[in-house]
Amino acid sequence: MLLTCYSLSQIDHFGFLQDGTFKQRYLVADNHWQQPNGPILFYTGNEGDITWFCNNTGFMWEVAEQLGAMLVFAEHRYYGESLPFGQDSYSDVKHLNYLTSEQALADFAVLIQNIKTIVPGAQNSPVIAIGGSYGGMLSAWFRMKYPNIVGNGCEVALAASAPIWQFPDMVPCGDFYKIVTQDFAKSGKNCDANIRRSWKAINNVSSSGSGLQWLSEEFSLCTPLKNKNDAVSFKSWLQETWVNLAMVDYPYEANFLQPLPRWPIQVVCKYLGFDSTVSDEQLLHGVAQAAKVYYNYTGNAPCLNTSQTATSSLGALGWFFQACTEMVMPMCTDGVQDMFEPEEWSFQAFSDECNSFLGVRPRADWAGTVYGGKKIGSHSNIIFSNGGLDPWSAGGVTSNISQSLVSIMIPDGAHHLDLRYSNKLDPPSVRAARALELKYFQKWIRQAQKSTGTGFTMSKDRKNSIK
Amino acid sequence: MLLTCYSLSQIDHFGFLQDGTFKQRYLVADNHWQQPNGPILFYTGNEGDITWFCNNTGFMWEVAEQLGAMLVFAEHRYYGESLPFGQDSYSDVKHLNYLTSEQALADFAVLIQNIKTIVPGAQNSPVIAIGGSYGGMLSAWFRMKYPNIVGNGCEVALAASAPIWQFPDMVPCGDFYKIVTQDFAKSGKNCDANIRRSWKAINNVSSSGSGLQWLSEEFSLCTPLKNKNDAVSFKSWLQETWVNLAMVDYPYEANFLQPLPRWPIQVVCKYLGFDSTVSDEQLLHGVAQAAKVYYNYTGNAPCLNTSQTATSSLGALGWFFQACTEMVMPMCTDGVQDMFEPEEWSFQAFSDECNSFLGVRPRADWAGTVYGGKKIGSHSNIIFSNGGLDPWSAGGVTSNISQSLVSIMIPDGAHHLDLRYSNKLDPPSVRAARALELKYFQKWIRQAQKSTGTGFTMSKDRKNSIK
Repeated sequence: MLLTCYSLSQIDHFGFLQDGTFKQRYLVADNHWQQPNGPILFYTGNEGDITWFCNNTGFMWEVAEQLGAMLVFAEHRYYGESLPFGQDSYSDVKHLNYLTSEQALADFAVLIQNIKTIVPGAQNSPVIAIGGSYGGMLSAWFRMKYPNIVGNGCEVALAASAPIWQFPDMVPCGDFYKIVTQDFAKSGKNCDANIRRSWKAINNVSSSGSGLQWLSEEFSLCTPLKNKNDAVSFKSWLQETWVNLAMVDYPYEANFLQPLPRWPIQVVCKYLGFDSTVSDEQLLHGVAQAAKVYYNYTGNAPCLNTSQTATSSLGALGWFFQACTEMVMPMCTDGVQDMFEPEEWSFQAFSDECNSFLGVRPRADWAGTVYGGKKIGSHSNIIFSNGGLDPWSAGGVTSNISQSLVSIMIPDGAHHLDLRYSNKLDPPSVRAARALELKYFQKWIRQAQKSTGTGFTMSKDRKNSIK
Repeated sequence: MLLTCYSLSQIDHFGFLQDGTFKQRYLVADNHWQQPNGPILFYTGNEGDITWFCNNTGFMWEVAEQLGAMLVFAEHRYYGESLPFGQDSYSDVKHLNYLTSEQALADFAVLIQNIKTIVPGAQNSPVIAIGGSYGGMLSAWFRMKYPNIVGNGCEVALAASAPIWQFPDMVPCGDFYKIVTQDFAKSGKNCDANIRRSWKAINNVSSSGSGLQWLSEEFSLCTPLKNKNDAVSFKSWLQETWVNLAMVDYPYEANFLQPLPRWPIQVVCKYLGFDSTVSDEQLLHGVAQAAKVYYNYTGNAPCLNTSQTATSSLGALGWFFQACTEMVMPMCTDGVQDMFEPEEWSFQAFSDECNSFLGVRPRADWAGTVYGGKKIGSHSNIIFSNGGLDPWSAGGVTSNISQSLVSIMIPDGAHHLDLRYSNKLDPPSVRAARALELKYFQKWIRQAQKSTGTGFTMSKDRKNSIK
């Protein structure tokens, strides 16, 4: 049974002027928990509603029995129901001031402390932090900043598809879009070339009023394009569509960001196989069909809404604020090694955009300073898993740093495929990844328990002898 | 040569509403620095003027040559010249809101980043964090929170006399005063017994106006005692005097908190050898002589000021604020195992006092949550040194936690004696401690350098071959 619970946490852990608390939501399932001292699998929630992450992290449910583990899914402050100032949380920069990763990590530590205090038998339970994407970054950082041996932090972390190095001066800014492009290149003949060609075709067609109208109809847009600016936004929306497809290029039918067929990029590319003699209109007709694979696989969408590209369970505004403060992630395109219009990365332009929309300016170096950048070799017990199809692997840890900072690559995997429920269509690489992750959990938990002398053991013999 | 420098740091590292910066002072000496890649000995400044800590940390100057090290002494925000809001820094709780250990640690990381950027040859220099007392807590915590392998954090930490466990529910609240008492008990016959007796004698004598006047004259107080309340404050001041003496019970003449003779408690105890038949007045005459050892060893003090017990280089108000927010350190006395009037620890009473004086309330559990409490076994490369005479050892790490979290005990040492300049009167235990500290520095630096492949070596051969 999955229980919904709430825990009190300080609104500001790092200052004492704002002394208020807020209710943090978390979900708990203890049906497989081996009491006392069985481990806690702790999902470090990211930028969205925790129930959605809970539903999309089947891996935790599947390993709970093998580990005798309690499951906890912690919602990240400012998302879902965990709003420090209720409906005012997003009202201005003053209220948004406590939306940072450091505050979120402190919430997790306080929550674990509370759980260990109120749940009999949990006091000596080792904690395995698990997360995907930004949640995976939080898992890794939680282990780095709160690395207890059975305290209120965690003993082990699984950081799935966590781009902890997608920050200034850590990885080339173009790698992300290169991987997107490669996914399309290998999913159908001419597929990437036709997307690369499509931007100019859109420019050509959208230069006239009738062209804009044609485009709007062709793409079944809810709000027709009216002018040049609309066409620019339209291209950004399309670009984000291809990125999202690369993230969710799963080997089976799934509904993560949108309901989609198996290997959706292959389906998309069926509409983009033209040779170079194709006309702009023919090409864009294909692009429209391709976009509808993403936005209307169910056939139920009356029109396409260019203001949204993914599930509303993700908190787009909150993430925009985080990107505009700590989470500065440089991206760039050159149109040669990738299939997009060339665009350089400009910190200044990004900072100005943040300032004009939100009234804050990002700090380019802070994430690197506070989380150690690429010099993280002193840490331990973190698994970094990455999918070869996932553009976010560009900023991930894709080779071993030490014996206890390990990388697991899943060549056929998109964005944290390993965290999803297992499926009969799973490629062997993700099955192997999950098995290895479980092995590391068991090994590192055993080490932690050995050093503290707490008596939980995961072997069946012990389990039987208890009864 | 010692240079005074300034580095810009964010006033609020953990929020983006307050986007101002302030000038952090630091002192640098590079005459022994072996460029490139020689280590940086980084003093993590505590609650006072950094020049004073610099002058009282001779150990760093003495090992600089052997390590080919650069010395950096970083001033803690809100102390000395490093005032985030200049003269307004202490004006109210709003301005004091950024006085926390977490902000101070972030300042250190930013400062190291800046030094590594502007000083040629420093980029791959390993950093050894060193500090004493609260500064030692910061050293340990800096290694815990920013544990790089040659990044912007540190590779090694020496936490001298650092009571990282003097927090609620970690150590018995009475141990601190027990150690103070033991110091007096072993420094002269009847010494602790007479101090224990003195409180009642003060109560008796101060019950009349003439008694208050006599006490004031006997102690040469600058401001005579007027009433019962004054007598209570007077006792607190005396209690703090004995505590301070225990902290600075050094084996040679020194001037740390006050100018003092060698083994000052032995000198003090010469005035406190009475047997139990002594009258209140005789006893208090002796106590007054004893107090004057501490307050007027130079003979230059015209009177004794009960509003100050130590050097003005320490920032008492700032520390009071820190104690009233994060640094909640329970202390208690029972008058049996210690020589003080019985006083229980009451978090509520302490919190109310903080609220009435400063308008803030402390958070009892926060330090334990954010710094891991007693479950710090996942960390590495920290030396915890403690003096057997030092009451702060009650809250210190006094036995090894692992092979790389080591304790060094100095039985004859008072408060971070090991950090002081060596002296011909140093007991063998402190000489051995310093030698061992140096050995760990060398070992752990070598390990860090080995894992990064940076070319600095500390052997003389290499030094000669460079020339």
